Amino acid sequence: MPTRTIVVLGGAQAGPAAAIAARQADPDARILLLERARHVAYAAGALAYRLSGEVTRNRVLGGGADRLSRAHRIEVRLGVEAQTIDAARRRVVLAEGAVSYTSLVYALGAESPIPAVDGLGDSRNVFRFRTLGDLEGIQRRLRQGARRVCILGGGFFGLEAADGFLRRGCEVTLVERRSRLLTRFTERTARLGRQALERAGAHVFTGARVVAVDCRDGDVCALRLAGGRRLSTDLVVAATGLRPRTALLAEAGARVHEDGSLAVDARCATSLPRIYGCGACVAVPHAVSAQPIWFAQAAEADRTAQVAGANAGGGRVALQGTLGSAVVRVGDITLARTGLTGREARSFAGDRFASVAVDVPSCEPFFPSATPLHVELFFELRKGRILGAEVAGRSGADKRSDVLATAICAGMTVQQLAGMDLAYAPPFSTPRDAVNIAAGAAFARLARAGGE
Amino acid sequence: MPTRTIVVLGGAQAGPAAAIAARQADPDARILLLERARHVAYAAGALAYRLSGEVTRNRVLGGGADRLSRAHRIEVRLGVEAQTIDAARRRVVLAEGAVSYTSLVYALGAESPIPAVDGLGDSRNVFRFRTLGDLEGIQRRLRQGARRVCILGGGFFGLEAADGFLRRGCEVTLVERRSRLLTRFTERTARLGRQALERAGAHVFTGARVVAVDCRDGDVCALRLAGGRRLSTDLVVAATGLRPRTALLAEAGARVHEDGSLAVDARCATSLPRIYGCGACVAVPHAVSAQPIWFAQAAEADRTAQVAGANAGGGRVALQGTLGSAVVRVGDITLARTGLTGREARSFAGDRFASVAVDVPSCEPFFPSATPLHVELFFELRKGRILGAEVAGRSGADKRSDVLATAICAGMTVQQLAGMDLAYAPPFSTPRDAVNIAAGAAFARLARAGGE
Repeated sequence: MPTRTIVVLGGAQAGPAAAIAARQADPDARILLLERARHVAYAAGALAYRLSGEVTRNRVLGGGADRLSRAHRIEVRLGVEAQTIDAARRRVVLAEGAVSYTSLVYALGAESPIPAVDGLGDSRNVFRFRTLGDLEGIQRRLRQGARRVCILGGGFFGLEAADGFLRRGCEVTLVERRSRLLTRFTERTARLGRQALERAGAHVFTGARVVAVDCRDGDVCALRLAGGRRLSTDLVVAATGLRPRTALLAEAGARVHEDGSLAVDARCATSLPRIYGCGACVAVPHAVSAQPIWFAQAAEADRTAQVAGANAGGGRVALQGTLGSAVVRVGDITLARTGLTGREARSFAGDRFASVAVDVPSCEPFFPSATPLHVELFFELRKGRILGAEVAGRSGADKRSDVLATAICAGMTVQQLAGMDLAYAPPFSTPRDAVNIAAGAAFARLARAGGE
Repeated sequence: MPTRTIVVLGGAQAGPAAAIAARQADPDARILLLERARHVAYAAGALAYRLSGEVTRNRVLGGGADRLSRAHRIEVRLGVEAQTIDAARRRVVLAEGAVSYTSLVYALGAESPIPAVDGLGDSRNVFRFRTLGDLEGIQRRLRQGARRVCILGGGFFGLEAADGFLRRGCEVTLVERRSRLLTRFTERTARLGRQALERAGAHVFTGARVVAVDCRDGDVCALRLAGGRRLSTDLVVAATGLRPRTALLAEAGARVHEDGSLAVDARCATSLPRIYGCGACVAVPHAVSAQPIWFAQAAEADRTAQVAGANAGGGRVALQGTLGSAVVRVGDITLARTGLTGREARSFAGDRFASVAVDVPSCEPFFPSATPLHVELFFELRKGRILGAEVAGRSGADKRSDVLATAICAGMTVQQLAGMDLAYAPPFSTPRDAVNIAAGAAFARLARAGGE
């Protein structure tokens, strides 16, 4: 007899990861994974790379349901959608009856709504960019000859999608309502992203709002922007206004934050007994500010899935604070960030907030592969603790961002980082690495301001 | 009138860096740089990359004496060698008279002796691989048709030289006395280096001793190894038995360690008044063990030069402990390391020593550029503190090593590292990065051994 029944809702990435972690924690449990769509256990973060042609379908899919079932003895039910959750009686109610659980893992992710513009929601060539199903719809259109793509949303997901379409040779237009792209980055770093996008051939409109669409045969054939501009298109991708899919659990009584994200503790337990949350729908405490923050990144989804799954399986695992680390490839450059954003750091540190920006070579300037790196550090005056960082460049941005993530996680100061011993050889770095130089500039600022 | 006279001995890399740091600390000082050879202020670590043809001469040279003089008002004297240092009277004695100093920076570096084999020392096609002068001699021979190169020494410098010659199309034979290459790495990681070298076409002999040489017209034409093997060659490069050039200062009474390296404190002050040491000749305290360690790496030379120069100029700057971080490119792979070596960590931690090795993908396995990474961690049982690490792979080894360097510098535990939030996107990493996976394996070991 199984010791317990663990039900997992959501099958894209976090759900399966949690189910596997639960299996590792409890070899005897009955584990049931419910997914409304036709695919499970795929790298949701890989859609753009499948689109670009760099990744082949089967490799993104991994083994899907088969692998979960064979390798981990997880029962997978596809095409099944939970109607309600009855936390008091520990049941998930489906159209075809109820399933009882000992513990429940909620991993329904996040969704991009189609903007509320007449004709957009019911056109057949308008897609989200979240699931393998979305990708299949887009690919069908591309095979049928679609070439002009309009992407709504200039955040991480919009830019990743734009990059994928550009590499595939599509004509890409990106439309962002706000005055600039990538608002988690500073204006200067975000501009490097926009420039890279434009160098790769994209048309970019910021401060632009879609007010109407022209349709033909059930398809959108043009977007109309406030101000009168008309953008002809074969395909529309909505990658804007991402929001957590938490309504089902909120209706069951779970605590959610103002932005709709699910509140969980360090064990990824929700406010309801025996219900754990993970993936792109939960908010996790920030390592620096301790405030819960929500950002739907795949690595964060996986981190929470490990914890939620293990605890649902009877383990006692705690989540470390998040750093909000993220990296995106846009044309020929990479943008990476970690820790508090500039805006968050300013609000966290108040009048002790300071920042520096440096432009330095990625490796020895005399080495042929050297390219410029833009590094920004957000830090506290006086003690000099690093709060956040962003790095942009053709090569080595991900490396510096991860070094800075580690430093932030450990509570290091800019002084420590300035003098820290990193590995040097001409193809990889400069004797004083980009991180040392940026931290040195921060330390100089600190010294001028009378820090320690 | 200048406030003080700062004399810097040694002009390759650390000397000029110290002189510039001294200038920043004291805008009014007279600063005098003495160098026995014809070149100053070049990237000594770049010789192999100049050899390979990747780097052009002028870019390695930077601006040399001209730049030091014009941009930093440093008097440069070339072809000048100090005979003695009179610490009591604060004078450096040269063949052409004495120079008085207010403070002295000693940066005479390290040298590879030519092994004591009859005929080797006085042959004209036997070179060291330390200075631009050495490189010029080698390049002259290559232009004259030399094609077969024997390199003595299988440490960092020998491998870097081998890589340069191989990329230039030479036939390379590497001879190492010890039973294996790269003894600062574990046997397993070092083997990856050897395999890469052999894949690139090199012949490698370990446990091999040169006992005699055959000469023709003043050149070595073959090396004879113990056991009878004869290696025909057009050129011999000695990159073995590196030792610090500290005799001059030791004769003046300065304290040196058993290995001949110069003892300095955290301000890079030697045991003699107003004499600072920096560069490839000094030993610096290790960040983990606090023991002074000597290893002649360019980044370490630069770090000490910053400190010695600033303090010689009246500043008060302290050096952070070193991590022994290093990276070397060998054929198609990169080997990087940081913190205590496996051997050092074992001796430091005693029966609390533990290590793990994992082989993981550098980025999403479904992404075309994914390649295997070999990661080894040395750590303490119980608390789980990371003591050292090494990483080898075709891509991303330098990144993981620098992340681990930061973690070691901050005193992080394997548990913290296992759950740390690093930036993820398919071209750059896996949702759980190589570092997380390696640290997770270490934490599992810790848990089995009854750690925290």
